[in-house]
Amino acid sequence: MTPMKLFEPIRINTMRLENRIVLTAMVTRLSGEDGYVNKDIRDRYLRFARGEPGLIVLEAMGVHSVRSGPLLRLSEDRFIPGLRSLAQEIHDTGPSRVVPQIIHFLKVARSGWRQKIIDLTREEIKSIIEQYGAAAARARVAGFDGVELHMAHAYTLSSFLSLRNARTDEYGRSLENRMRLMGEVILKCREEVGIDFPIGVRFDGEECIKNGYTLVDSQQMALRMAQLGVDYISISAGGKFEDALHKAGEPLYPYTGYSGDRCMPSTVYPEAANGYLAHGIKRFINERGFCAPVITTGKIATPALAESILQEGKADLIGMARTLLADPDWPKKVREGRAETIIGCVHGNVCKNLDENFMKVTCTLWPKGSLQAPDSRDTEPPIWPRGAQLEAKYNKGRAELSWQPATDNEAVYGYDILRAEGHEPFSRLTAVKRNSHWDLTVFGGTTYRYMVRAYDLAGNRSEPSEIVNVYVPMLGMESLTGVDQTAARTSFACGEE
Amino acid sequence: MTPMKLFEPIRINTMRLENRIVLTAMVTRLSGEDGYVNKDIRDRYLRFARGEPGLIVLEAMGVHSVRSGPLLRLSEDRFIPGLRSLAQEIHDTGPSRVVPQIIHFLKVARSGWRQKIIDLTREEIKSIIEQYGAAAARARVAGFDGVELHMAHAYTLSSFLSLRNARTDEYGRSLENRMRLMGEVILKCREEVGIDFPIGVRFDGEECIKNGYTLVDSQQMALRMAQLGVDYISISAGGKFEDALHKAGEPLYPYTGYSGDRCMPSTVYPEAANGYLAHGIKRFINERGFCAPVITTGKIATPALAESILQEGKADLIGMARTLLADPDWPKKVREGRAETIIGCVHGNVCKNLDENFMKVTCTLWPKGSLQAPDSRDTEPPIWPRGAQLEAKYNKGRAELSWQPATDNEAVYGYDILRAEGHEPFSRLTAVKRNSHWDLTVFGGTTYRYMVRAYDLAGNRSEPSEIVNVYVPMLGMESLTGVDQTAARTSFACGEE
Repeated sequence: MTPMKLFEPIRINTMRLENRIVLTAMVTRLSGEDGYVNKDIRDRYLRFARGEPGLIVLEAMGVHSVRSGPLLRLSEDRFIPGLRSLAQEIHDTGPSRVVPQIIHFLKVARSGWRQKIIDLTREEIKSIIEQYGAAAARARVAGFDGVELHMAHAYTLSSFLSLRNARTDEYGRSLENRMRLMGEVILKCREEVGIDFPIGVRFDGEECIKNGYTLVDSQQMALRMAQLGVDYISISAGGKFEDALHKAGEPLYPYTGYSGDRCMPSTVYPEAANGYLAHGIKRFINERGFCAPVITTGKIATPALAESILQEGKADLIGMARTLLADPDWPKKVREGRAETIIGCVHGNVCKNLDENFMKVTCTLWPKGSLQAPDSRDTEPPIWPRGAQLEAKYNKGRAELSWQPATDNEAVYGYDILRAEGHEPFSRLTAVKRNSHWDLTVFGGTTYRYMVRAYDLAGNRSEPSEIVNVYVPMLGMESLTGVDQTAARTSFACGEE
Repeated sequence: MTPMKLFEPIRINTMRLENRIVLTAMVTRLSGEDGYVNKDIRDRYLRFARGEPGLIVLEAMGVHSVRSGPLLRLSEDRFIPGLRSLAQEIHDTGPSRVVPQIIHFLKVARSGWRQKIIDLTREEIKSIIEQYGAAAARARVAGFDGVELHMAHAYTLSSFLSLRNARTDEYGRSLENRMRLMGEVILKCREEVGIDFPIGVRFDGEECIKNGYTLVDSQQMALRMAQLGVDYISISAGGKFEDALHKAGEPLYPYTGYSGDRCMPSTVYPEAANGYLAHGIKRFINERGFCAPVITTGKIATPALAESILQEGKADLIGMARTLLADPDWPKKVREGRAETIIGCVHGNVCKNLDENFMKVTCTLWPKGSLQAPDSRDTEPPIWPRGAQLEAKYNKGRAELSWQPATDNEAVYGYDILRAEGHEPFSRLTAVKRNSHWDLTVFGGTTYRYMVRAYDLAGNRSEPSEIVNVYVPMLGMESLTGVDQTAARTSFACGEE
């Protein structure tokens, strides 16, 4: 078999990545309000480093000193030492390269009030440019391999790019004016860090709000970034204030509305739900002779999917946040041919909900109460002392499953539920920690086969349970086979195209 | 050249369509509150009929008698005569087949309160089924060629299909239960109209709201419809109550939020913005052996785009609403090789805004004050008595265009603005009625060529104006050519994939 493109090294300016897997920036709420690196932050990122992704993007750090919730800072030199030792430790841990994501944001109040870009004076805009430049320079001094400029979601630079940008001066309304601050910030950062230090940009391929921009504009924005010498372009979506739901007594939070869902696609979305954005942007800039690598993100959880996106040329790198939160060892396991031991993200967005409720971000699949992903070298799989005794029955439009608990020398971590339609091959439906599950997604007139496997902290899988069949009845179809066949015939012939 | 697939006839159950163009249902607000066909409605649809689309779907008609704004009704036999003569006149006018879209909706109050499906009793649900069946039977009696069941947007059946359906009985939560009422309504209508009367369904391929369903569910819903013998499946998107913006003193209206924009994609969206939904659904049901034709809609304005969608097998029929509102003669003009005389929709959504403000729906391109599209046989194009004298200059991030008014033997109807980047071919940017325009979408570092053409009521185009070049400067790029080139080189080679 051919080597995976996922593990083909890639050079980004002077930075060489060992693989195409990128840990994209993710809010952790583990830092203090003082902005310094602390033990929890350190533990979180060193854990990611042990999994060996090609690139680790550290969570957003403020370029300025406005008060806020827990947030790392790169706004003053005093933050450099802590970040330098973190970068050093990440380098000492494995091959991962590491860049900080730097951010500027406006004021938000618990009343729901928020400062808007239309309120900013020219002097304030100039200072944002200076702050970005200074923070980028500190990133280099701190020993990072590059820097990522946060121009996505609800934050200052994204609000300038937004189609909702209503400024009437040279920073607003027209596409060129909306891109002006982005350009000035990129140029200033380049001036500060020099030509041989990678500068990446993360921005929204689509705003996903009423009167927001779409690929029509984001393709041009990416082209401008490439023209300005940006070394990689990381594509996100949504995460805006405009449709955020205000929680009484809390600051308005930009991931609470529909656009927040589009930013972190849940179970209800197809795999790689935002893939069309990175694909459309990559095609657009490549056709115009620009090669800045494009990172795609959004519900990419399996090696097969990640590899196919690269093989099809839809992106140059695969961004993962929730997938690596669920299993930081994902890259290493795939490289070592142990993909079957991956703890798979179920896209239930418990992590997103913790963030929305201003709590420390963990994964629901982790052992209760733990602040970091487990780190086990165990090789002994769970067993079913009394057999799995899987039972599954149809009831009220759903399939109800239950089974006996498994045991493990360390601890049983969870159960994968596998499902097959008729004689199709099994695929993973979801994973749960308890030993029962209701499948609300069954489709009538189908016989489903179910099977469960227990897994431990290292992802070792138990023997599969017995396979149990469930027939899901379909509303009155028995009597209707004739009708639908006729209807099928009386319309035009299939496979016409 | 090969004949266009767009004009390849298609049989849908017993109904033969002369071409693949469908006028999808559109709110007109032309009817009275009494629910009877009136002169304005008659004029509107006979105008469409003269343009010869393969199928005309009449705007939604209530299956029940709840009070509402202007709305046609099919809820009692007394509405049959008016509809029968309208159907007859449409048949007498041209080859178009015609079906009514039938709808059930819940109560909405000016306070913003709205009745929800969770409030419905089993008896009320049973009566909805009966009402749909009776209305479908009336559609046949009235001489229509079929009937379309409205299961899209914010209305009752769509709310049952919705992932937000929180009913705890057999009509809610699980996919099967959410599809239950849909199935019961389809079976009841089939029972009422018989096997040889086409039944179509229009529903959302994606809800486009927080926690709404996506293609993951809509593919299964479409499969169920096909299994139940539905004769065509028409795909819409969004248009939900959940994100509607309440206008004080008016009933909550479901096209006012983000999901409303997704329903009628405006200028900011790519062409055929919702095409992936029909494509994904068609592929899914065809792979499972079902052939119910799939109709795609959403910003499909040019013959080339419509034809390519059919050639690529992404849909079986092309739905158009705004495109045919702007120019009801679109199908006829394309068939007769007069595509260059089409009055092109500009997707400014003035029609959508009129609807949102409870006003009669017209097209902004139409002559001021007219309630119907003009109907001119004139063949004499507009002229430029003093030349067009097109002037275009760059100013503050935009290109500012102005030209001399044209004159016409009948009336100058508008001006197409054509734009080309560098030496690329010209394409239509937009159309305006006044003789000036600001282009806010220009991209710096580009020389644009502009040209305008005047058109009259019949769509006859004047001679093109002179071509004027505008160079749009790009923020500091002059000094940067070196940098971005280097950056491009230092990253990986283009065309690697």
